[in-house]
Amino acid sequence: MGPVHLSDTRAQVVKRLVDMLREAHSRGARLVVFPELALTTFFPRYWMTEAEAVERFFEKEMPNRQVQPLFDAARELGVGFYLGYAEITAEGRRFNTSIMVDSSGAIVGKYRKIHLPGHADHKPEAPFQHLEKKFFEVGDMGFRVYDVDGVKTGMCLCNDRRWPETYRVLALQSAELVVLGYNTPSLNIHWNEPVHLRTSTHLISLMANAYQNAVWVAAAAKCGAEDGFHMIGSSAIVAPTGELVARSVTEDDEVVVAHADLAIGDNFREHVFNFAKHRAPEHYRLIVERVGAGEPIA
Amino acid sequence: MGPVHLSDTRAQVVKRLVDMLREAHSRGARLVVFPELALTTFFPRYWMTEAEAVERFFEKEMPNRQVQPLFDAARELGVGFYLGYAEITAEGRRFNTSIMVDSSGAIVGKYRKIHLPGHADHKPEAPFQHLEKKFFEVGDMGFRVYDVDGVKTGMCLCNDRRWPETYRVLALQSAELVVLGYNTPSLNIHWNEPVHLRTSTHLISLMANAYQNAVWVAAAAKCGAEDGFHMIGSSAIVAPTGELVARSVTEDDEVVVAHADLAIGDNFREHVFNFAKHRAPEHYRLIVERVGAGEPIA
Repeated sequence: MGPVHLSDTRAQVVKRLVDMLREAHSRGARLVVFPELALTTFFPRYWMTEAEAVERFFEKEMPNRQVQPLFDAARELGVGFYLGYAEITAEGRRFNTSIMVDSSGAIVGKYRKIHLPGHADHKPEAPFQHLEKKFFEVGDMGFRVYDVDGVKTGMCLCNDRRWPETYRVLALQSAELVVLGYNTPSLNIHWNEPVHLRTSTHLISLMANAYQNAVWVAAAAKCGAEDGFHMIGSSAIVAPTGELVARSVTEDDEVVVAHADLAIGDNFREHVFNFAKHRAPEHYRLIVERVGAGEPIA
Repeated sequence: MGPVHLSDTRAQVVKRLVDMLREAHSRGARLVVFPELALTTFFPRYWMTEAEAVERFFEKEMPNRQVQPLFDAARELGVGFYLGYAEITAEGRRFNTSIMVDSSGAIVGKYRKIHLPGHADHKPEAPFQHLEKKFFEVGDMGFRVYDVDGVKTGMCLCNDRRWPETYRVLALQSAELVVLGYNTPSLNIHWNEPVHLRTSTHLISLMANAYQNAVWVAAAAKCGAEDGFHMIGSSAIVAPTGELVARSVTEDDEVVVAHADLAIGDNFREHVFNFAKHRAPEHYRLIVERVGAGEPIA
């Protein structure tokens, strides 16, 4: 998905999403993955109050009047979708959220982002902010797998894709497919990270975790420059073989499609990654007993 | 390391190891990583009794008379090394083991392989066996990090490198470097896996896990054909950026060297993979609560 600028309206954005849904359907797709915070610009790059962010960028209901055309198109075409958006609950809690919508247009799953990157404080010297830790709470629903039109589908969002725990918790629930949206700035505001690494580490994370969990992974980005702030794009579909089978190449709205044979994961699940035969959780305990890194165990 | 045939003696093998240690030292290396089961052929490919395997392929002591020249060379040159071998304990327990030896020639760490691949039964119809589950117990020491000449070094072996839990448990102990040896047959005896995947999944596993844990990874294989059984080779050194910085290209003994600036991991540890800031173990519990994959959590 190309950039969404501050001046773009929800109606304009939803029209683009519907157009891409229709194109995907015309090319045989049965499920479409849209980006994180797909309805607005990636607003955590701007310093503002929480109240202003909620007013401008958060959704109180889903679907709502503005997004309804996307749900209608999904039902009309019989195509499911994944969509990321900023959620404000009735209690005023704020999450970076995604939903799964099945081919009948019904919401069948929700995820609230757990690995929130960035910071909560104002960094006026930085070229832009990354305020996910200010605008969002850590998700409270865990990593869940949903039956979406018969496919065991796990969800995550953006930075989650760089954390192996994400995929493992989903694979331990027998996920066959992991879907995610993301927005990754091309510049790292914390240190002078070579730009190419932002893309290469994105791709190797998808590839290795797809393979190591015998799942398909479909990851959809916003790309291009939103009001001058460039993102890496590089939406990708990866097979359980760890192979990149489709990726975007433009800086604008673009549909990439792959035929995902779910059975490709079976050989990996039955042999090299037969978890029941080979895993040894008694030796993994530090993964849950520690948050940060510490001393070697004696 | 090139092939070790059934007819090769320990003395012949150790001479090759010493030659590679000397070449590595001449090229500036301070630590050398040798393969898994480096002293013998990869004997789990052959059906035999446990007693016969112990007699022919296991080490009762380490160092022993035959391996002592390698320890002597390490001390002489001031170069540490990692070495894999088959261990039989005084109680008769059998492990697929590796050790860390520091630059004084002292053993400063030991690891016993946890993720044993393959099977324990005889598969006479297969072109060869993969009997690690017959010849070895699951390791009983966990994944440990040792101070090796001032470098926080974690160890694992072969199939462990395809399991993200391995690296994470080591990174949670502040590992800066993960070293491992392996023997990977080019053919998969369980299903008709495309040969190229054996190598590509090896490399993406090293690259993604190095990156996701901000560690250097050095992985050393046996390569070429041992008595006609070909292995993938592809020894590799990977930086915390996820970048492959050195790899072997021949089918015989070959030394590849990289200058591993440990500080490269710092930016990743301080920002994107600042575990203390970003990890959420309350959402990772399935990793230790389940062995095999099960139903989605409600």
